[in-house]
Amino acid sequence: MIPLNDIPIIEEGDDIADIVCKSISIRDEDIIIIASTIIAKSEGEFFSLENIKPGNKAIKIANRCNMKPELVQAILDRSNECLIEAPFILVEHKNGSICVNAGVDDSNVESGLYLDLPKDSDRSAREISGRITELTSHNVSVIITDTNGRAFRNGQIAVAVGIANIEPIRDWVGEKDLFGNELQITQEAIADELAAAANLLMGEGNGGTPVIIIRGMNLFSNKKCSVKELYRDNEQDIIRKGLNALKNNS
Amino acid sequence: MIPLNDIPIIEEGDDIADIVCKSISIRDEDIIIIASTIIAKSEGEFFSLENIKPGNKAIKIANRCNMKPELVQAILDRSNECLIEAPFILVEHKNGSICVNAGVDDSNVESGLYLDLPKDSDRSAREISGRITELTSHNVSVIITDTNGRAFRNGQIAVAVGIANIEPIRDWVGEKDLFGNELQITQEAIADELAAAANLLMGEGNGGTPVIIIRGMNLFSNKKCSVKELYRDNEQDIIRKGLNALKNNS
Repeated sequence: MIPLNDIPIIEEGDDIADIVCKSISIRDEDIIIIASTIIAKSEGEFFSLENIKPGNKAIKIANRCNMKPELVQAILDRSNECLIEAPFILVEHKNGSICVNAGVDDSNVESGLYLDLPKDSDRSAREISGRITELTSHNVSVIITDTNGRAFRNGQIAVAVGIANIEPIRDWVGEKDLFGNELQITQEAIADELAAAANLLMGEGNGGTPVIIIRGMNLFSNKKCSVKELYRDNEQDIIRKGLNALKNNS
Repeated sequence: MIPLNDIPIIEEGDDIADIVCKSISIRDEDIIIIASTIIAKSEGEFFSLENIKPGNKAIKIANRCNMKPELVQAILDRSNECLIEAPFILVEHKNGSICVNAGVDDSNVESGLYLDLPKDSDRSAREISGRITELTSHNVSVIITDTNGRAFRNGQIAVAVGIANIEPIRDWVGEKDLFGNELQITQEAIADELAAAANLLMGEGNGGTPVIIIRGMNLFSNKKCSVKELYRDNEQDIIRKGLNALKNNS
């Protein structure tokens, strides 16, 4: 794992692939882990709360969460479904991921502005991967990360929100254990484990390091990969059913 | 990250600290990541289903999950509460963690036997940390890991189930972002991120590598640390409330 310590503050229009290639000599099969914040900044995903008119639902949730109604309306506008309305807001984002506040954040952004997630993080990852290959002739994988809370456990860890040229799940189906029996644990979410590993070196504050290289894993794939392979099918999601039961009871 | 590739198959009574120290020259502040399976084996936590008499609840759940009633009874015996009864069993283990099948596993164990989690993984981690210091005079941290499914996301990742000499959560409270505003994301579950990182090199099958060293992180702590700091307080756990609502509705 190699942290890139000289990434400047990213602004709209910046070419992140070029910045990465100037910071380190890329090798074949490097995995480039990038915080979603700087992707969103380079893509200009800023917005302000001016001109947002909160509806009744947003006002109700804002009161329960002690948040600005305009911010809650912005969050609802980006969501397919609100799974938890208070004391924090957990939604299914229109991109299919389940996240607090629809990923909207005002950390590391100028005062008064908010930052969205990248519009399509898989596409952003593919573009950066392609551009790095263009610049260096090396094949690389890209994982875009965000930090998430978890069910049952305190603290946040990073997960993948967009990927390119890496299969997000390593499948152990049919593999045998030490005693020749078939393994029961068969799917390892390696894209999330790589995101979590890189986050140990990223930090959150003004000393933040938004790009980490993971070298020597041999995980490059030519397939078209998507982070959506990591999103559980609604119909099978018992925890989601539980949250719906809670909403219907209240 | 350094995988120890020469760890033998562990048997009851084996001294894991001694085996680790013979495999690598330990340095100050090394973080020793160990799969819970080999800790449980060294502590002799095997059991068979003979002599287990399943009760009515176990028989009912066994039918719904297509599992052996004796195995379900063993799982219930190890649990404070059953959160999901089907199509898989999610419980709060008596040790306070939320896990599938109460952590009982028959992978990498002789046919007919099952393996429990270590009785007290924090204590096991402290013992191994203390013994390594005895053998090498170096201060080390220990994290014992298991693989877990997650809410909303496919695939499993490793998490910490026992720790010694490392604070499980890195606190960013009061830290400022790039623009001098206080950070909103304040708690990073680094013990879980370290577990996930190590799992990338562990594998699950018969080529498994159950011990990984993480070097150079400077995270050693003299405080008495516990993995329980990672377990969310029941009262605040909305997802748990949701699962209870679902049970009451059915």
